[in-house]
Amino acid sequence: MTRRLAIEPLTAEAFAPFGKVIEVSERAKHFPINAGMAERYHDLAPVEVRGDGGKAIISIVRATPVTLPLTLKMVERHPLGSQAFMPLSDRPFLVVVAPDSGGRPGTPRGFMTRPGQGVNYPPGQWHGVLSALYAVSDFLLVDRGGEAKNLEEFTFAEPFLVGVAE
Amino acid sequence: MTRRLAIEPLTAEAFAPFGKVIEVSERAKHFPINAGMAERYHDLAPVEVRGDGGKAIISIVRATPVTLPLTLKMVERHPLGSQAFMPLSDRPFLVVVAPDSGGRPGTPRGFMTRPGQGVNYPPGQWHGVLSALYAVSDFLLVDRGGEAKNLEEFTFAEPFLVGVAE
Repeated sequence: MTRRLAIEPLTAEAFAPFGKVIEVSERAKHFPINAGMAERYHDLAPVEVRGDGGKAIISIVRATPVTLPLTLKMVERHPLGSQAFMPLSDRPFLVVVAPDSGGRPGTPRGFMTRPGQGVNYPPGQWHGVLSALYAVSDFLLVDRGGEAKNLEEFTFAEPFLVGVAE
Repeated sequence: MTRRLAIEPLTAEAFAPFGKVIEVSERAKHFPINAGMAERYHDLAPVEVRGDGGKAIISIVRATPVTLPLTLKMVERHPLGSQAFMPLSDRPFLVVVAPDSGGRPGTPRGFMTRPGQGVNYPPGQWHGVLSALYAVSDFLLVDRGGEAKNLEEFTFAEPFLVGVAE
């Protein structure tokens, strides 16, 4: 039976167990730079790289949009590095994460971003693949480059339908 | 006497001596991910962190726009880390860089971005401060966090006027 997941608004509090929300927030440490011409919202998320031969790199991902409700068949995780996705457009996107439960993903949760919000997954965080909405959308991606097995995928026995009332 | 600098269009070739242009480009290595739902333009720029206690962090800078022509009085550089600036809006911004000449900046050059272009300065690259245009603009910043002296500033004996015909 397909299980149904509602989509929650993305907030720093709700997302805290899964990673960081990258956004301008008065609760972040912030301070003026450039003689007051700019305000720096500082260290919103760390870039983490583990394992031999790893390095942090900056890429762009151009994503085809999904449609809602989304049929979620699998999630993945990257044990050796964090992944930050920051939208380069004002369009929201869908963020799906799952807690770890003994090396497998537990029940997923779906979050809808507001314009100006990105996310950072720490190493090992189960998540759905990048899910743009409405139009082809570009995202800045900061993650680990270099050889090494840095991908685990998990296919659910039954898919979840994300984006309908529970 | 104030010296005048024209503004050039930002291209990967013209900018190569000063850093990387972060943009979707067919000349970059790129490949499909997420079962073909996205295209990854891979490793457009490295994140470099040097010195004890340094780490790569993700911040947002909210910049007040400058007006053109810009009076350029100083440039700065960060010996211990790269700095990537990616606009989170579609507005162009002004990028000013200078070659190093025996530990001091040589003659600066000014570049105008197109929408979708960001830049990455390698460690030690002389550059002007972030110069948004037209409206208050947010930029994703990937650079070095942690204590250490990671800023050198140089004030020109005579300012440059950037954005007028030479």
